[in-house]
Parts: sequence; structure tokens; C-alpha cells
Amino acid sequence: MIQKLIANIEKTNAPVVVGLDPMLSYIPKHILDAAYEEKGANLSGACAAVFEYNKQIVDAIYDLIPAVKPQVAMYEQFGVEGMEIFKKTVDYCKEKGLVVIGDIKRGDIGSTSKAYADGHIGYVEIEGKKFFGFDEDMVTVNPYLGTDGIKPFLEVCNECDRGIFVLVKTSNPSSGEFQDRLSDGKPIYEYVCDKVNEWGDMCMEGNYSNVGCVVGATYPETGAILRKKMPHSFILVPGYGAQGGKAEDLKAYFNSDGLGAIVNSSRGIITAYKNEKYSNVDEKEFYLASRQAVIDMIEDINSVR
Amino acid sequence: MIQKLIANIEKTNAPVVVGLDPMLSYIPKHILDAAYEEKGANLSGACAAVFEYNKQIVDAIYDLIPAVKPQVAMYEQFGVEGMEIFKKTVDYCKEKGLVVIGDIKRGDIGSTSKAYADGHIGYVEIEGKKFFGFDEDMVTVNPYLGTDGIKPFLEVCNECDRGIFVLVKTSNPSSGEFQDRLSDGKPIYEYVCDKVNEWGDMCMEGNYSNVGCVVGATYPETGAILRKKMPHSFILVPGYGAQGGKAEDLKAYFNSDGLGAIVNSSRGIITAYKNEKYSNVDEKEFYLASRQAVIDMIEDINSVR
Repeated sequence: MIQKLIANIEKTNAPVVVGLDPMLSYIPKHILDAAYEEKGANLSGACAAVFEYNKQIVDAIYDLIPAVKPQVAMYEQFGVEGMEIFKKTVDYCKEKGLVVIGDIKRGDIGSTSKAYADGHIGYVEIEGKKFFGFDEDMVTVNPYLGTDGIKPFLEVCNECDRGIFVLVKTSNPSSGEFQDRLSDGKPIYEYVCDKVNEWGDMCMEGNYSNVGCVVGATYPETGAILRKKMPHSFILVPGYGAQGGKAEDLKAYFNSDGLGAIVNSSRGIITAYKNEKYSNVDEKEFYLASRQAVIDMIEDINSVR
Repeated sequence: MIQKLIANIEKTNAPVVVGLDPMLSYIPKHILDAAYEEKGANLSGACAAVFEYNKQIVDAIYDLIPAVKPQVAMYEQFGVEGMEIFKKTVDYCKEKGLVVIGDIKRGDIGSTSKAYADGHIGYVEIEGKKFFGFDEDMVTVNPYLGTDGIKPFLEVCNECDRGIFVLVKTSNPSSGEFQDRLSDGKPIYEYVCDKVNEWGDMCMEGNYSNVGCVVGATYPETGAILRKKMPHSFILVPGYGAQGGKAEDLKAYFNSDGLGAIVNSSRGIITAYKNEKYSNVDEKEFYLASRQAVIDMIEDINSVR
């Protein structure tokens, strides 16, 4: 799957991914009104609005980008109906040729991680037939439980040609509380990084591994170190834009081949129409602001790689 | 919510929780056959079988126990339809008066954790009305992202009278890879434990906090230390039974009031009918084996507290 992601990045010349992380407060009023009128001001109405919002954004930007990253929490907040819309979003984006990275951050003991892996990037077998649950291309995973919580994901990656991104150093302000703790002079995230290499070796596809990692844009010095330590892992980089990460900080996240990193922006793209910079756009055509924000982001990122 | 859990434990005299973690291979043939005949040998059929299996077990044991812990991964593996059955299981168990602990191990950056908290133990607001998504009583959470990934859960706990259990030391073999790393002479899980106390102070309800922790039965020496360090936190204890934890190891997980721990068994209860010990039970009455296994487990645990 990492080779499909690379092919998409090369085709679009855009090492970026758009986070489809809808909150109700992000959605333009005309979409909410229409959905509430049709389905009621309830979970069904909210979910219909979320999908319409996603769809109009995706329709406006899919030709510019290699991948999207729906954050499952933003769908899970609406319960079962939210998960339906998550699945519908995954399917819609795949139809458009995008690589879909499910931002799920799952991780558990072995038998349980197996179920997560099967549900998100693999399948369950029922009377000898395979059924794919959410069917993303790649997912993010949490390493706190160690190797036996990750191994089932590796097996599914190899069997079904999928990929994972392991949280190494997250973008949030308190990420250092545990991740930065020094043990024998080395921060915990570097121990995770060592494991990413070990796990990554089991899932190589060409020059890169189907096991990538997550390193926040908000810690550029750490990013520079981790880039060198995990030469075969793509870095999924959250924290650009709304969280404060800048393009100039991201140069060191790329390898000399210009690959090896894919930078995420969520709010910066999907709520672009609320940004003064794009205030020339009518709210009914909010997706045009998203399109321009994607173009600007690609130019910004490409200026440093 | 911790007081409701305590009241349920005192009423049943049973500091145990049953993990509703269904795998298709656990479900008796007659249930699978009936479900596949009605709905087809597909995800709908599998999910119908899972719910029927859960229901028959819950009907047979609900009067004996204070709480259940459905592992969401086992439902998520079936995609959207699995999540429907998860929700149906949560609702059914709550109707029976059980405290429902969603084993979801979620955790993310602040704004995302807020969505998880809202979806599982809180609500979303749509046009001024509250809508509860999965609506569990308590959930497990992953601390790898630090305080800002936990805080939204604390806020929802306080607003909606719910509870969380933070992963401190998990029961699986590789839990030590990162959790046991020493930093300034102290393992990482003890730093998490310090934070559990800090977070727990914000959510006290009587003598105990609505912020509990997870410490595996498989590391009893660690359990004994952590019990003393987190006097106001209930310990949710996985790893008893199928994973190898024994009752004698669990004495130290309880406080002197006989409270402070709730021991989980999943496979040991829900697949009891496959255990030679309960082979007198006809497979069609598999739930009677589960009932006897619960009685035996309660006796076993009560012998040490």
C-alpha cells in the first residue's frame, strides 16, 4: 500500500493528506439546514450533514491530493449512525482513487488488536467467505501495549496489502509527559522508533515499509532526529497549520528522495471558508476555499522539500 | 458512577466483571445456524448471532454480577453492523441494571478525545438537544498522549456522572516494552499512576474516584505496589483466568475495605461450555456453564479479599 501512496504523491506532486475531521460547528448553515429539514434535527440529520459536507469537500479537492485521513472519533461521537457515515466516507474517497488513512489510534492486547486489524484493514471470515468491515487502506495505531498489540496489524498489512502508522511522537502539548521521559538517556519515543524499525522490516514494499510512524510537526527537532532513525518509514505529520506547525520546520521530515513524509491538515482545509484569507468565497461555495487552501498548502510544503 | 459500581458490587458481593468479547468461534453452532438461516451467512447473520449469544449469557448471569465489559474491538471487527450490536449490547445490559464498562482504549489529542468522550460517555448537542451515542457508563482510555488527551474524558465524567479506567500496566506479555522502562529509577507506568492520582482528584465521588486504572492480574507484584500508590482509584483487573492470572495473586489489588478492585474474566465465562469442567452442560444450554463459571469465579475471588 505504501507504493500506492507514493504513486499518488508523485502523480499529484503533493505530499499532503487532508484530515476529514468534521465537527458540526464547521459545517455551513445551508448544509445543516437542508439535512435537518430532511432527516430531523437529530443524529440522522447531523450525520447526513456531515456526509454532504465531506462529499462537497472531496469533490472539490480529490484531484489535487494523494490521500485523506478521516478521524474516526469525529464520526464515533454520533454513535452507530456516525460509524455508518465514516464507512460511507471511506468508500467514497476510495472510489475517487484516494488512499484512505483511518485515524483510529487503536491498540490492545494481541487477540483484541487482531479484531481491530481485521475490522479496519482486514476481514472476518464467515462460512469460508471474506467480509471487509471498514476497509481503510491504512490506519494509525497506538504502541503503548508493545509488540503483541502491533503484530496482528503487521500480519494483516502483509496479507491484505495495507499499511499502518505507529504513534511515535504526537503533536499535542502534553505529548511529552510520557513520550519524552528519558530511560538510559533515551526518550521513550526513541524506543518506540526502534520498534517501528523492527516491525517495519517485516513489511517492506520497495524502498519503504508499510509500517510508517506519526511524528508531530510541532516538534521539528525531534522530527529531524526521528527521520534519520527510521529511514524506511513514511512519517505521517499532524500538527501543520491549525496546531502551529510551519512548512519551514518540515524540511527535515523528508528524505533526500523528496519522499518519506506526508503532511496532514484538517481544520486548515475543511474550515478554510471561515479563514479571512479566503473570505472572497461565498459560504455556499465553501469547498472552493478548501480547494484554494489545498493548493496553497501544497505550494507551501513543496517549497521546503 | 463509581458509587453505582460499588453499590452493585456490594449488592452482589461480587467484585467481578464479565467481558462480553464475542468471537464467532465462541458461539454455539445452533445459534450461528439459526442466525445464518434468518439473515444469511454474512455480516448481518454474524452480528445477529453475536447478539443472541450475548443475550443468552447476560440473561443467565446478570443477577450475579455488578458489571459487564464489552470489548468494542470484537464488535468493530464486523464493521458498522458490529457497532450496532455493540450499542444494542450496551443498552440491553443497562436495562438489566448492570454497569457497562466499554473497553474502548481510546485516546488522542484534546479535541479528538473530546469527540470520543462525547460519543461514548457523553453526548453531542444538536440544535440545543442532547443526543447520547454509545452511552456506556464507564470506558477504558489510553494515556500515551498525556493529560490533554485525558482531560476531555474527566470533564464528561463530571458532567454526566460517568467513569474511566486509565491503562497503567496492561496484562499482555509485551506490556513491559515501554510501560516498564525506567526513567529516573521509576517505571513509566508509575508516572502514569501519578497522573491517575492527579486526574482522579478532579473526579472524586465519596471515597473513590471516577478515574480508575487498569492493572493486569498477570503482574501481581506490580499490582501490589500500584494498589498502595493509587488509594482512591478502582483497579480494573484483566488477565484473570484465560490469560493466566490467579485469585491468590489478586489479594493485594483490594483495599482493606474489600473494595478497590474489579476483576474481569471474558473467555473463562463466555466460553465456559467448552471447558471440560462444565462438560455436563448441553451445548444448547451453554449459558448454564457461564452461570456456573461466574459462581465459581466469585467464590474464588472472594476467598482472597
